[in-house]
Amino acid sequence: MTGSTTSSTTGSTTGPARARRGRRPGAPDTRAAILGAARELFASSGYGGTSIRAVAAAAGVDAALVHHYFGTKDDLFLAALQLPIDPRSAMLPVLEGGLPGAGERLLRVFLGVWDDEQNQQPLLALVRGLAEPSGQRLVRDGVLQMVLGPVGRGLGIDDPERRMALVASQMVGVVILRYLLRAEPLASMAPDELVAAYAPTLQRYLSEPLA
Amino acid sequence: MTGSTTSSTTGSTTGPARARRGRRPGAPDTRAAILGAARELFASSGYGGTSIRAVAAAAGVDAALVHHYFGTKDDLFLAALQLPIDPRSAMLPVLEGGLPGAGERLLRVFLGVWDDEQNQQPLLALVRGLAEPSGQRLVRDGVLQMVLGPVGRGLGIDDPERRMALVASQMVGVVILRYLLRAEPLASMAPDELVAAYAPTLQRYLSEPLA
Repeated sequence: MTGSTTSSTTGSTTGPARARRGRRPGAPDTRAAILGAARELFASSGYGGTSIRAVAAAAGVDAALVHHYFGTKDDLFLAALQLPIDPRSAMLPVLEGGLPGAGERLLRVFLGVWDDEQNQQPLLALVRGLAEPSGQRLVRDGVLQMVLGPVGRGLGIDDPERRMALVASQMVGVVILRYLLRAEPLASMAPDELVAAYAPTLQRYLSEPLA
Repeated sequence: MTGSTTSSTTGSTTGPARARRGRRPGAPDTRAAILGAARELFASSGYGGTSIRAVAAAAGVDAALVHHYFGTKDDLFLAALQLPIDPRSAMLPVLEGGLPGAGERLLRVFLGVWDDEQNQQPLLALVRGLAEPSGQRLVRDGVLQMVLGPVGRGLGIDDPERRMALVASQMVGVVILRYLLRAEPLASMAPDELVAAYAPTLQRYLSEPLA
């Protein structure tokens, strides 16, 4: 994951409709073909089962061109997810300060992103994709591997896969109830109320004995 | 909710494919028409916005016939949800024993139902319905109103809507991660491991101060 802090210069996670901010605008058709191939392969083979080389072959271009347009495999995967934000930079404040208070910081970042109307619709599109196996794989790899995985490793917790899966299970539930179903009273609760309810849960999953 | 403990004699929650176990077999076409109308109205107008009378009108039958075939409005709603079990009887062990330990008992009932292969597919069909607004309404009313609402009231907790929504948000997240996405390590964790991780969360949502 060498490119994990360099994404701010690629603009690759802002969706295909927006022009790349690099030096060269690139050919939109080639770029779209790469992105389409990437989305298809990540959805069918998962993050781990997809290589830049395979995406390049499926798009009929050279692997170097994929790197040129999209950067690392992580960058390409995030571009394929069409997230409205780059979770790698969004999560940096969670890591700063270490494990104490990380549950609350994670929750506040999460609520800040989701409560922003501009982010909510593209994120909900990803959630609706859960009805299909391809969308399930994108969400599983995207949320666990790309968004929460680096947080667990960055915090240096023991058994990060298990702990971050527990964290994910609570946050995904909030997404479904508050943002997708708009179930009351969750949909109308203020961020501070949600933090009071959920931060101790997340902190326990991150740092306390679970057996 | 007068019919809340009588459903075992109606067979109304076992899906339309299975014959009704009551004294009279009934006319399958009429029964199917009522169920179709009910499903459509509950999905578009919600549980609260749907009356037996409206379902009867939409199906072109008398309201008495709806009662005859399906019992109460709760029975009809559960039949429309096509759940593989009746959550009202399934939840009885959660209420027995009162608030202490209710989080763990709720979790064990929930895992027992979901870990049963026979239940999993029909339940996942409901989850996949979350992609559509009609399915969202069915799940929201079904889970919060029919499954968890009576538990909150039965346990006599303060602010039951808020507490049960918090409980729902954790359980829905487990459904998505463990059963729909089959994300590891959650998908392979034994019930006792899940209880160790989640029961304290649910118990806190049920009985501890949240502000």
